[in-house]
Amino acid sequence: MKILVTNDDGIHAPGIKFLAEALSELGETFVVAPDRERSAVGHALTLHHPLRAANVALNVFAVDGTPTDCVNLGIHCLLPFKPDIVISGINRGGNLGDDITYSGTVSAAMEATLMGIPAFAVSLVTGGEGANYPAAASFAVKLASMIVTQGLPVDTFLNVNVPDLPEGSLRSALITRQGKRVYEGTIVNKVDPRGRDYYWIGTADLNFLAIEGSDFAAVSRGHISVTPLHTDLTNYNSFAQLNSWNLT
Amino acid sequence: MKILVTNDDGIHAPGIKFLAEALSELGETFVVAPDRERSAVGHALTLHHPLRAANVALNVFAVDGTPTDCVNLGIHCLLPFKPDIVISGINRGGNLGDDITYSGTVSAAMEATLMGIPAFAVSLVTGGEGANYPAAASFAVKLASMIVTQGLPVDTFLNVNVPDLPEGSLRSALITRQGKRVYEGTIVNKVDPRGRDYYWIGTADLNFLAIEGSDFAAVSRGHISVTPLHTDLTNYNSFAQLNSWNLT
Repeated sequence: MKILVTNDDGIHAPGIKFLAEALSELGETFVVAPDRERSAVGHALTLHHPLRAANVALNVFAVDGTPTDCVNLGIHCLLPFKPDIVISGINRGGNLGDDITYSGTVSAAMEATLMGIPAFAVSLVTGGEGANYPAAASFAVKLASMIVTQGLPVDTFLNVNVPDLPEGSLRSALITRQGKRVYEGTIVNKVDPRGRDYYWIGTADLNFLAIEGSDFAAVSRGHISVTPLHTDLTNYNSFAQLNSWNLT
Repeated sequence: MKILVTNDDGIHAPGIKFLAEALSELGETFVVAPDRERSAVGHALTLHHPLRAANVALNVFAVDGTPTDCVNLGIHCLLPFKPDIVISGINRGGNLGDDITYSGTVSAAMEATLMGIPAFAVSLVTGGEGANYPAAASFAVKLASMIVTQGLPVDTFLNVNVPDLPEGSLRSALITRQGKRVYEGTIVNKVDPRGRDYYWIGTADLNFLAIEGSDFAAVSRGHISVTPLHTDLTNYNSFAQLNSWNLT
């Protein structure tokens, strides 16, 4: 099996090291990851300047771009083969609910999907540094093996969230839906040493709604959450209402 | 009516000027937009460094961040009121099919939706500079007025694509689904003046699939395309297949 691994916490993050090492038991593993943390960059693609890729170790490239750039560059240019699967993570912190739309980790798996390669993102749900990357890596190995054997549903990639628990304490994997958060963003507005205003986007309170069957509901009860995602954002349920508008 | 206008082509782009001017007939219009072009940045949010907002004209702010930053900062900090609607555009070039996942323009409307404010993105489908911004702006005014009167379906925002045609030649607005593209990305790999490799993500061929009822099908026949989107990426159709896997 040929595997491409990336992330958005950057190439030096512990999660990607645990992940790549665990996956190497399944086959040849290449790492192409951002040279620094690139969290919350969404599905950003760098078009306006060139990218550099430093071959920092055997089969390991550090790219000065986004996770989406890494997948794009890895598949089209850096890897000597087309990978059988792309795996993004292990992210430090969960990727749950609408937050996935900001996530570089999840967007990397989306990018692979757009290129026709099976993919999933995997995140460790922790508020701190994370203690149980090995347990999450072990589940990722099992899932990767399953995906390559069974195939993913068409145009579908998976968003996996693993509670930060030892392997023996993790509860079963559940197929879940994307949850929903109430956003209460805050901006920190301060004045710099030269008297000019600056603004810093602050942390929002994590107000997830209690939705049965959601990713958040699963991990909050100690289950591994596996959410099937696709790139079709169309809200088909709204067609009737909108067609009743007289737009022309 | 209170209106926030943003884009991803940057504050100096012609599209946003036509849009803001046309919308000012509906109510008080604020512009908060990136200080330079920020195309293809997706739903990126700047968390790792502070943002600056220059008040460059009455009710006009230039921000050194992404379109998503602009909406976030505009709503939480810069505007003296909560807007009734957020409108992003007029983008130079269509935002069609899976490409919307990369789009800063569309992501700005998504950001407003996550904050509970009705929103839409509007793009002029052109391969060049674009000749008919006024026609697209005129449709945006009509749509904004309709949205504030009727309300949007819950959790839904609209992705509008207007063919680059004079107002009299535009065909009716159709409610469409997100289309699908076949990606054939290319990377330009060259050597810099100091002998080091660099990589530049190239333009992909625009191979849209002929899908009846899609955004692409509508604009290719001269219709205005209005696609209702939501932030739920869950592929519900794949649950049965995935639940049959033995994941634990």
